[in-house]
Amino acid sequence: MHLLAVLEYDGTDFQGFQSQKKGRTVQDELERTLREFLPQSERRAGRVKIVGGGRTDAGVHAYGQTATFDLDWTRDLETFRRAWNAKLPTDIFVRRVSKVPADFSARYSASSRVYQYRVWNQPERSVFHCRYAYWVAEPLDVSAMQAAAEHLLGKKDFAAFGSAPDGGSTVRDVTRVELHRDAGEIIFTLEANAFLYRMVRRIVGTLLLVGRGIISSQNIEDVIQRKRRAGFSVPPHGLTLMEIKYE
Amino acid sequence: MHLLAVLEYDGTDFQGFQSQKKGRTVQDELERTLREFLPQSERRAGRVKIVGGGRTDAGVHAYGQTATFDLDWTRDLETFRRAWNAKLPTDIFVRRVSKVPADFSARYSASSRVYQYRVWNQPERSVFHCRYAYWVAEPLDVSAMQAAAEHLLGKKDFAAFGSAPDGGSTVRDVTRVELHRDAGEIIFTLEANAFLYRMVRRIVGTLLLVGRGIISSQNIEDVIQRKRRAGFSVPPHGLTLMEIKYE
Repeated sequence: MHLLAVLEYDGTDFQGFQSQKKGRTVQDELERTLREFLPQSERRAGRVKIVGGGRTDAGVHAYGQTATFDLDWTRDLETFRRAWNAKLPTDIFVRRVSKVPADFSARYSASSRVYQYRVWNQPERSVFHCRYAYWVAEPLDVSAMQAAAEHLLGKKDFAAFGSAPDGGSTVRDVTRVELHRDAGEIIFTLEANAFLYRMVRRIVGTLLLVGRGIISSQNIEDVIQRKRRAGFSVPPHGLTLMEIKYE
Repeated sequence: MHLLAVLEYDGTDFQGFQSQKKGRTVQDELERTLREFLPQSERRAGRVKIVGGGRTDAGVHAYGQTATFDLDWTRDLETFRRAWNAKLPTDIFVRRVSKVPADFSARYSASSRVYQYRVWNQPERSVFHCRYAYWVAEPLDVSAMQAAAEHLLGKKDFAAFGSAPDGGSTVRDVTRVELHRDAGEIIFTLEANAFLYRMVRRIVGTLLLVGRGIISSQNIEDVIQRKRRAGFSVPPHGLTLMEIKYE
């Protein structure tokens, strides 16, 4: 049976989503716990290989990460989801599980990804707000950042903001770059068919330069055209993968 | 100069406020960083001894913990506060520092303490809500808990809910036991002149039994009268010391 899971995790204590040589990853935790659902005879050598919908770097959180995998399961899926959650550590939670066609891929079937970046924009840091938000003490001009955000919309070469994981094309279709104040925070929401490596964090870093008046919102066009690395990359703990959409 | 600090901390990675033989404590971090403000000649052997306003157990958070201590400082206090915050780890933050009379004690001058306990009352756990809230999946009757809370008000012997740290009197004056729903949470607020060891967590544990219909709100009077340990103690991570009041 081919299954799609939608899951959330607190990225603080993970070296990212994807398995790697060293360090705790979300993929490893998912695969380790799924192995326990294999028939007794296969459990030792067997493995449930998952495909993640989006990569998240070390420290990046997810509310709507997705993963596809194959598993034999004869009872209802809600029972499976509950049993799986009971085995998972407290910083991962599976929100939904559904049956999908055999050729459905969490990664390749995705039509777009939505990310949120949170900035704690107050004069002082806060113990309770800074786990999921990046602290910027300086005042930020939200209108100027909103004007700059407009320039990022559309199908463009975003080489200035990141590299393709496979060294391929750096053209991406960005459909949403929004930001607003919410209590002490500024919340950025970005959507694109796919993002380059670190692209969300570099876009937010560049918008913050606009917000501080260091570059003007009109400069954004130049930054894109120049195709040279722009701004700085804001830290991972403010970033959350919110949703992966499928048509 | 005798100083009073108001501070917040995320209790997750602390073995409580007070110094002890083993484990990381808030007091140790405060004293370690304050030592750096001593004159060079005293820095090695010298120590700044602090007195905390309220004890918090391992895992309990604080938004308004207080501490008093003596320190020579010739410049303005805001400069000192910023310099101290720069030395402190990210899970502690000093919100205010003020000069107080020499006989003022964070602990003994306090007139009351305010605690908040948060319950995530949803059918499913949440990775992002359960760091500062205790998950209760079962539906809870808020009205019944509010009725039960009324019985806890006043100057009474609260032996049923805790022991005195020094084996002394278990009489305490409780002036506030309130609870309300807020989004997916139920938030309890308790205030008393002082609390017994684990008293807040045992009161909330007992109110949750009322909320689940296991005991009735009228039973609370019996529980207090019997002076035998009541209900269970809810886990520390839902608890936050909000404020310590001085007259």
